[in-house]
Amino acid sequence: MPNSPISTPPDINDVKSAAERIAPYAVRTPLLESPHLNEIAGGRLLIKAEPLQRTGSFKFRGAFNTVSQLSAEERVGGVVAYSSGNHAQGVAAAAQLLGLPAIIIMPEDAPKTKIENTKSYGAEVILYDRNSGDREALGEEISRDRSASLIRPYDDSRIIAGQGTVGLEIAEQARERDASLDAALVCCGGGGLISGCATALVHDVPEVEIRAVEPEDFDDTARSLAAGKRLEVDPGGNSFCDALLSPRPGELTFEINRRLLAGGLTVSDAQVADAMRQAYSRLKLVVEPGGAVALAAALSGAFDCRGKTVAVVCSGGNVDAELFAQVLGGG
Amino acid sequence: MPNSPISTPPDINDVKSAAERIAPYAVRTPLLESPHLNEIAGGRLLIKAEPLQRTGSFKFRGAFNTVSQLSAEERVGGVVAYSSGNHAQGVAAAAQLLGLPAIIIMPEDAPKTKIENTKSYGAEVILYDRNSGDREALGEEISRDRSASLIRPYDDSRIIAGQGTVGLEIAEQARERDASLDAALVCCGGGGLISGCATALVHDVPEVEIRAVEPEDFDDTARSLAAGKRLEVDPGGNSFCDALLSPRPGELTFEINRRLLAGGLTVSDAQVADAMRQAYSRLKLVVEPGGAVALAAALSGAFDCRGKTVAVVCSGGNVDAELFAQVLGGG
Repeated sequence: MPNSPISTPPDINDVKSAAERIAPYAVRTPLLESPHLNEIAGGRLLIKAEPLQRTGSFKFRGAFNTVSQLSAEERVGGVVAYSSGNHAQGVAAAAQLLGLPAIIIMPEDAPKTKIENTKSYGAEVILYDRNSGDREALGEEISRDRSASLIRPYDDSRIIAGQGTVGLEIAEQARERDASLDAALVCCGGGGLISGCATALVHDVPEVEIRAVEPEDFDDTARSLAAGKRLEVDPGGNSFCDALLSPRPGELTFEINRRLLAGGLTVSDAQVADAMRQAYSRLKLVVEPGGAVALAAALSGAFDCRGKTVAVVCSGGNVDAELFAQVLGGG
Repeated sequence: MPNSPISTPPDINDVKSAAERIAPYAVRTPLLESPHLNEIAGGRLLIKAEPLQRTGSFKFRGAFNTVSQLSAEERVGGVVAYSSGNHAQGVAAAAQLLGLPAIIIMPEDAPKTKIENTKSYGAEVILYDRNSGDREALGEEISRDRSASLIRPYDDSRIIAGQGTVGLEIAEQARERDASLDAALVCCGGGGLISGCATALVHDVPEVEIRAVEPEDFDDTARSLAAGKRLEVDPGGNSFCDALLSPRPGELTFEINRRLLAGGLTVSDAQVADAMRQAYSRLKLVVEPGGAVALAAALSGAFDCRGKTVAVVCSGGNVDAELFAQVLGGG
């Protein structure tokens, strides 16, 4: 039996329950710091290293939190998800751990490493054309035809609560080192990660300034926050941040983000590539383009970190070796 | 006033004291695990991620433990060290944190990133020709002329105790996840890291099988362990593992290693490059050639991990972007 999404915002207790649920399988990723990056930013950057998460991105957290809560009835036909690649791997890995079949709908131009990894977790992968296909309709159709539970990428309270464990850990890890957060920079596609992080961080530090970071051409959340209502991106935009090409904010995520965020920021692909090179040389961390936008905002000055302690989420590291080598060579 | 090395083997309490000394500055690096790498190895690999350490390698641990114990008199002329690059950065960073001047003697063909980073920690760098120069004599000379305390790369009990904190953390982190170690694979140049790790690990798990891993042409420790006495490598050898090109085991380190290790293993540069690619794609971790030999031993089958739980130390990640891009392209 297909499941229904839960469309009420999660609270801090939902995030804490998610943390307990994922604890046996997810990595409590470290909060990294580099004197060199601090010097560039002129402040103190506490960098949450989600490339070190199971499946190489934060998406495993929300996926496992959601799939593990499906009822026996909802599990019968397995799960289905649509994703540019990281949610795909998260859902596939969660389903595998829980012994459920998974069908994943991915754009045919997704990074090869994301497609291969999703298959490696035992999922059936269905490719579609990003320009002509409607992934949401396709997901609903497969969910109906195969009685599979659709695991949405962000507009589900369980997904948001799972991603919120990133914020919960940041708050804990900042306290462990006696750091008091002034701000947090988090990448934003549909808004699941940042809405969850904001839920956890604001509970801990009510006055923290939380900013969504997006690629220049995909600034839907920045513009929507400024307008106070959900707006679409202009068509024809382009970015190599494949994980962040969503056309509009999620409904539930925007409801939360409008309440908790200070606004949005954008960065160029060139600034993102520079941040990837800095993560390589200073953190020894592989960060994919979409995972590096928040770091790009901190290092480029798009967000002024001077004199501040700023949490920066590096959200994933699933980038094809060819592209990574190109980025390294482009410095 | 120049200092003298301490030439009695450290015990577990020396390692614990080192852990306390470095705690405010060093990173408790995570123990990473990948289902994919476990599958390749046929066992459970617990991978200690020292590229995430301050200065990008474990060397900061021993350097800080040693420099911070110098007396006021020994600090007057600052410190001097010779190193292929990671000990260089460790000593330079430790000296900077403690407000001491540092002179570092490095081979002129050391990776650019290692030379630049060493300078970035405020050290004066003196380059020498690896083929014609005698770095130990040069170090002693500068130590005398400038009254600088020579910080040896491995033959000093304080260095070994500092590097041993890697083993102490592995033991703690394995316990935290209820894992019982069957074996540990650790890279070996002069032997400081593995002798320190062995001191800590054997205290915790007396029956653990500890193996030194070296590049094929630099198998001095493997051969010395087999012979029961210190032997030199054959001249004319070659490897891109720049951190592991030592010609013979250290005196103090070998005294410890002969007692505590099960023997040595070697890997080819091709196996090391493959391990670097696996660390990139599965761990999202940048590992330098010399830092990847232990992982290479686990993944290539040079060490049979089947059915075992094996600690694998990835010791550093200071590799020039050009070389890393080449390695990624060579898969």
